[in-house]
Amino acid sequence: MLRSCAARLRTLGAVPGPARRPFSSEKAIQKDYSLPNPSWTKDIRLLYDQFMKKCEDGSWKRLPSYKYTKFVEEQTPKAQIFTRSLEEGLGFEYVMFHNDAEKRVVCVFQGGPHLQGNHGPIPLCSVVVINSQIDKIEGRKYFISCDIRSVDEKTLYSEATSLFIKLDPNKA
Amino acid sequence: MLRSCAARLRTLGAVPGPARRPFSSEKAIQKDYSLPNPSWTKDIRLLYDQFMKKCEDGSWKRLPSYKYTKFVEEQTPKAQIFTRSLEEGLGFEYVMFHNDAEKRVVCVFQGGPHLQGNHGPIPLCSVVVINSQIDKIEGRKYFISCDIRSVDEKTLYSEATSLFIKLDPNKA
Repeated sequence: MLRSCAARLRTLGAVPGPARRPFSSEKAIQKDYSLPNPSWTKDIRLLYDQFMKKCEDGSWKRLPSYKYTKFVEEQTPKAQIFTRSLEEGLGFEYVMFHNDAEKRVVCVFQGGPHLQGNHGPIPLCSVVVINSQIDKIEGRKYFISCDIRSVDEKTLYSEATSLFIKLDPNKA
Repeated sequence: MLRSCAARLRTLGAVPGPARRPFSSEKAIQKDYSLPNPSWTKDIRLLYDQFMKKCEDGSWKRLPSYKYTKFVEEQTPKAQIFTRSLEEGLGFEYVMFHNDAEKRVVCVFQGGPHLQGNHGPIPLCSVVVINSQIDKIEGRKYFISCDIRSVDEKTLYSEATSLFIKLDPNKA
């Protein structure tokens, strides 16, 4: 998720759409999954509403989220974004918000019953807040940090730091 | 996956079965998913055969893998093991082998087309070998290391170390 959020920070502004059915318009094809659906509990819905309010002055932006990207689809026809491969409510329900001035992405996440892993601190089907930000940029080095907290922000479940190197297009 | 493998190392011997349909026997209910199926490519099949051969003298053991565990099912009826929630071939195809003397678990893993993430070094639908082992035990501290390599073991995709603390049942 840290990697996903960080990648979002890097690729903001990139057009995410593939052409599933080339005769339709891109907008008609790509369903945006980062919008409320009936599986959302009141916890995720409440945070969604709070961030949508923050979006009103333009400081925050909701990031759309799709099931397909152009890149891999060309290689692998059945390819789907990992976090959008499980049915509504059963796996990953999430919405990400971006604040450009703060270089920050907040992901509000609800894990469904099909995400059972080993016994851990985060209860199945609960909602958590994943906060990731760019702490420092040095040339092509991006220093990212991330933490995962409970909805009331009182419980810190996990935290991490990571270094990403921006690709040099001349060398790629 | 490191966490998953490490947890396997810790919980070896534990009975994984739930009672989905209480009138059937446990064996009849629990399908073992760590066996070849038609979605397996020749890469994963070859490694499976190699490890099954190593199992013949008892030094290695194939670990069965199920879709449900008793623990969470009681709390959440729809709960399913995360890595067994996608359809055959589309997500996680894997089999784990355990070597008790070497304190080691090797997972042969084939990622399906529904695991698309951000562009990374591991091609979608390829097979990798995940090797995890206990390097050191100090009281209740378990020092675990793990690496992910290509089938020919020449490419190192990722490596990690982790410290696990064994729970003290008297304090739990």
